Amino acid sequence: MAAQTVASTTDSTVDLGPAAALSCRECGHRVPLGPVFACEECFGPLEIAYDFSAYDTEELRKRIEAGPANIWRYAPLLPVPADVAEKPNINPGWTKLVKADNLARELGVTGGLYVKDDSGNPTHSFKDRVVAQALEAARAFGFTTLSCSSTGNLAGAVGAAAARAGFRSCVFIPHDLEQGKVVMAAVYGGELVGIEGNYDDVNRFCSELIGDPAGEGWGFVNVNLRPYYAEGSKTLAYEVCEQLGWQLPDQIVIPIASGSQLTKVDKGLQELIKLGLVEDKPYKIFGAQAEGCSPVSVAYKGGHDVVRPQKPNTIAKSLAIGNPADGPYVLDIARRTGGAVEDVTDEQVVDAIKLLARTEGIFAETAGGVTVGVTKKLIENGLLDPTRTTVVFNTGDGLKTLDAVAGTGLTATIRPNLESFREAGLV
Amino acid sequence: MAAQTVASTTDSTVDLGPAAALSCRECGHRVPLGPVFACEECFGPLEIAYDFSAYDTEELRKRIEAGPANIWRYAPLLPVPADVAEKPNINPGWTKLVKADNLARELGVTGGLYVKDDSGNPTHSFKDRVVAQALEAARAFGFTTLSCSSTGNLAGAVGAAAARAGFRSCVFIPHDLEQGKVVMAAVYGGELVGIEGNYDDVNRFCSELIGDPAGEGWGFVNVNLRPYYAEGSKTLAYEVCEQLGWQLPDQIVIPIASGSQLTKVDKGLQELIKLGLVEDKPYKIFGAQAEGCSPVSVAYKGGHDVVRPQKPNTIAKSLAIGNPADGPYVLDIARRTGGAVEDVTDEQVVDAIKLLARTEGIFAETAGGVTVGVTKKLIENGLLDPTRTTVVFNTGDGLKTLDAVAGTGLTATIRPNLESFREAGLV
Ligand SMILES: Cc1ncc(COP(=O)(O)O)c(C=O)c1O
Ligand SMILES: Cc1ncc(COP(=O)(O)O)c(C=O)c1O
Ligand SMILES: [Zn+2]
Ligand SMILES: [Zn+2]
Repeated sequence: MAAQTVASTTDSTVDLGPAAALSCRECGHRVPLGPVFACEECFGPLEIAYDFSAYDTEELRKRIEAGPANIWRYAPLLPVPADVAEKPNINPGWTKLVKADNLARELGVTGGLYVKDDSGNPTHSFKDRVVAQALEAARAFGFTTLSCSSTGNLAGAVGAAAARAGFRSCVFIPHDLEQGKVVMAAVYGGELVGIEGNYDDVNRFCSELIGDPAGEGWGFVNVNLRPYYAEGSKTLAYEVCEQLGWQLPDQIVIPIASGSQLTKVDKGLQELIKLGLVEDKPYKIFGAQAEGCSPVSVAYKGGHDVVRPQKPNTIAKSLAIGNPADGPYVLDIARRTGGAVEDVTDEQVVDAIKLLARTEGIFAETAGGVTVGVTKKLIENGLLDPTRTTVVFNTGDGLKTLDAVAGTGLTATIRPNLESFREAGLV
Repeated sequence: MAAQTVASTTDSTVDLGPAAALSCRECGHRVPLGPVFACEECFGPLEIAYDFSAYDTEELRKRIEAGPANIWRYAPLLPVPADVAEKPNINPGWTKLVKADNLARELGVTGGLYVKDDSGNPTHSFKDRVVAQALEAARAFGFTTLSCSSTGNLAGAVGAAAARAGFRSCVFIPHDLEQGKVVMAAVYGGELVGIEGNYDDVNRFCSELIGDPAGEGWGFVNVNLRPYYAEGSKTLAYEVCEQLGWQLPDQIVIPIASGSQLTKVDKGLQELIKLGLVEDKPYKIFGAQAEGCSPVSVAYKGGHDVVRPQKPNTIAKSLAIGNPADGPYVLDIARRTGGAVEDVTDEQVVDAIKLLARTEGIFAETAGGVTVGVTKKLIENGLLDPTRTTVVFNTGDGLKTLDAVAGTGLTATIRPNLESFREAGLV
């Protein structure tokens, strides 16, 4: 419990903007802002508690709209100092919300279908959003090494952010990840350690390291900085609503690994409602998993409140967390909002990647194949209403999971003349 | 000369916004807007001639600033209809201009160093900018197939844009391109034809195909739509200046394949000056090539006006055009502005990719390695002034040229426990 010892000695006057304290999601116990993640009373997860009381809705809206074309436009709603945009960071966000009319036609969606395409982020996944937050927390707490356990995308995001901000980095990944993810994580020059085991083994190891002298001065973005890190996913909710003209969508389909993203998107939507930035109305949140790693989907369908861990076996490696920390919260949100959690096979993932590429010109990684595939399935089984505004997340980039579509390649090979072209039979 | 026959029959009332006609860069001969690229009088390249006479500077500036966060904010300065932002396109641009303070320190630049990072575009290269223009022209001229000869990046950009806009696509590439580029070009579902030969063979073949019935109804973005296509690169100039607070940089380093991008960036800067959007002052344009394909650099250093073709042999495949169409114009611009053209070895390209990643968290493709490497060399040989504001282009994405840094990988592989971690000697 070294991390918790640090907490009590951390100065709560650290400037992280509107972040006022950490508060236990289970029992509400509050502690000062610090690099801690578990409640000292009940071991529940700690979340950021904000003081938004000074905001006037229309002033806030204007301030956001006048802000930079990245997540820092929402700095007043995030645990970051007010001058965050001036500091060296990777400044992700404000990615495209693509009106996906071709895909809508193929899926029979008539109420408006959008793809929130986070492949436009600096390291081409939504992880840049969460890492950008964790980096500011790491800076505030005086850490000098940025670290994480990663299924691949987080590794690249941490490597890039650390490089730019002048932190040392040491990143832990399962030893058998996709080449694109390994090279991208390595190229920024930090330490990159492969662990013989799956993500859950990597994660367990990192928790051990935090309690050990070897991990001193290390900010693990998704462990001891997790409360800050997780808030980055709220920006997906903010952006979707602002890009829809400050409106809530009716339905959102979100991928699940640890479940953090889905949980915080819901938190972000709730904040927008409370702040009066969007009109309150019902919305449904749907979770998407791959069948080969579907602990939350299985629990949802079985009507359980607890998530039974699985040993992952799927091409959607970025979602391959068999023991998802926020699984119970995901179940709660899906049920409370009237959504669902569904899963698709690896084959359906590949088909969905190709479908999205062919219809919208968006090349998603396997995680995007999971959400598009699940959207199709949810429409087929009647759980998602095709007459309502629907947003599907693509949280990663196809270039990082080339193997999934490696069968795709040249239609023909010819010599550089018209005869050879005619022989190929393309015209 | 089938393409030129089409020209004279094309209705010049086609709506491409401020584009008024095509005008010969060599002799000034004007023809109506149409899918033609060579002057019927002198065979010189045709360029778009605009009518900007109605614009008031401050109104134009406000209109741009209120526009979308993509290239269509500059629609009043491009050959596209006024409602272009409403049509299905891939909407590239408004990519980050990264203040590269860490890289500046390493290179000894004190006057402000920026990286214009076009890896943030939809298919992660600057080619999305030019294809987005060509697509609007193809639509205006009634083409139904989008085609191109490509060194790799253009293939992906054409595939994606065609998919989204509902065009058929047929793309021609050298058969031995990087896996990332081939898969990305193929995944959108169009035809992808590998040609046994290098890019110059591919290009020659496409020119043949345009004159053949088999190519009827085909818009080759970089052949018969080249005048429209090329204008897309102006948006790099517009964005850099707007992002610098409507100021010209002192120096820009730009990669050269055909030389189109460099030529049009200069054109864009000249337009901003003429329109009064930036204050007139001298700027220098530097061209960057790989030693293994350096026809323009060789001509520059030799003091020649003509470019002698080369047989390319470099890892910078996206720049491997041995017979660059706009080479003479590049020479002219480098000399007129007081810039230069320089080249670096493949080894220097790799070092520069790693340098940029390590200092700024930006993972560039080989073309970005070329510009960063050339910038370093230009500073060392005194041709680039480190005390002046300098912008270096990264026009592509490292994930597409993984092989260049394939040596980079895991620092260590360990078992998931502290003993194994200690043995690895990282702490
Ligand atoms: C591309 C991508 N999408 C979604 C997720 C899900 O994240 P979370 O752990 O917040 O559920 C991940 C996690 O690694 C990811 O890499
Ligand atoms: C990444 C990248 N940068 C730069 C260029 C140069 O383009 P141009 O032919 O306009 O000189 C290319 C051309 O393919 C490219 O792919
Ligand atoms: Zn508690
Ligand atoms: Zn002429």
